Amino acid sequence: MSQPQNKSAVEPAAKTRLRLWLKLLKLSRQIEGELRENFRVEFKTTLPRFDVMAALYRFPEGLRMNELSEALRVSNGNVTGIVDRLVNDSLVTRVAVPGDRRVLRVKLTASGKKEFLQQALQHEGWVDSLLGNVSGDDAELMMELVDKVFSNNSTEQSDT
Amino acid sequence: MSQPQNKSAVEPAAKTRLRLWLKLLKLSRQIEGELRENFRVEFKTTLPRFDVMAALYRFPEGLRMNELSEALRVSNGNVTGIVDRLVNDSLVTRVAVPGDRRVLRVKLTASGKKEFLQQALQHEGWVDSLLGNVSGDDAELMMELVDKVFSNNSTEQSDT
Repeated sequence: MSQPQNKSAVEPAAKTRLRLWLKLLKLSRQIEGELRENFRVEFKTTLPRFDVMAALYRFPEGLRMNELSEALRVSNGNVTGIVDRLVNDSLVTRVAVPGDRRVLRVKLTASGKKEFLQQALQHEGWVDSLLGNVSGDDAELMMELVDKVFSNNSTEQSDT
Repeated sequence: MSQPQNKSAVEPAAKTRLRLWLKLLKLSRQIEGELRENFRVEFKTTLPRFDVMAALYRFPEGLRMNELSEALRVSNGNVTGIVDRLVNDSLVTRVAVPGDRRVLRVKLTASGKKEFLQQALQHEGWVDSLLGNVSGDDAELMMELVDKVFSNNSTEQSDT
């Protein structure tokens, strides 16, 4: 790679960080846009719906609705509405919590798991293609740098 | 920094890129969430509204609605609705295009410019604080790495 012009040598750090943030935002929006379109075309589904299924896949015993919202963390569309539609599509089911039958958990059905795994496999392939110019070493380096940002923000949790 | 465990030495590149993407997505969502809340509390405004004003600020002569949508690129809420409300708030005005009076441009009013500059200053400060752990050199390095991702995706334009 040719040596880039190091603007940060002559600009305040705040400006450099702003340029970095705008670039990161643009990147994530662009990739999200591509993934959104791929999910729509290939699976007639949405990113928030995939996110809900991914969260439920990580918890085979299921999650209460508040736990599911917590697992998604960021307000990600209408979780209740998404779950309702997944239940209608037989991809998610509601089960009683042992010991407290008033409380329900939602979990993937067998066909929900199967559907999610197909989507997850494609998703990984799309991401691999979209990030194809990043070597494994560069990816590790980038993750280290992202972790530095996280270490400045107390809301980070170490679950990914 | 301590040497991180280099998972990419033992996992396929596709998995490493997926971990990178999930981390980038989490970072951008977290920072967007903080900025969204700050805009709401400090200015009673929204990120899409700030984005529209930022786009118009870059074009003092104003933009046609289709140009504005193009400048925002990503479907970013209802641009027409946002502009309507900015017009109602006297922050944006509609002007006729010289030579084609059937076509209107939207542009910031004087008070729109003033309001935007106040918001942009605060925004820069919030970003500086949220990314405070990233040195200028690390920021430059991160931007180089992001550019590598962009160079793989043809929809990138070199305007930021």
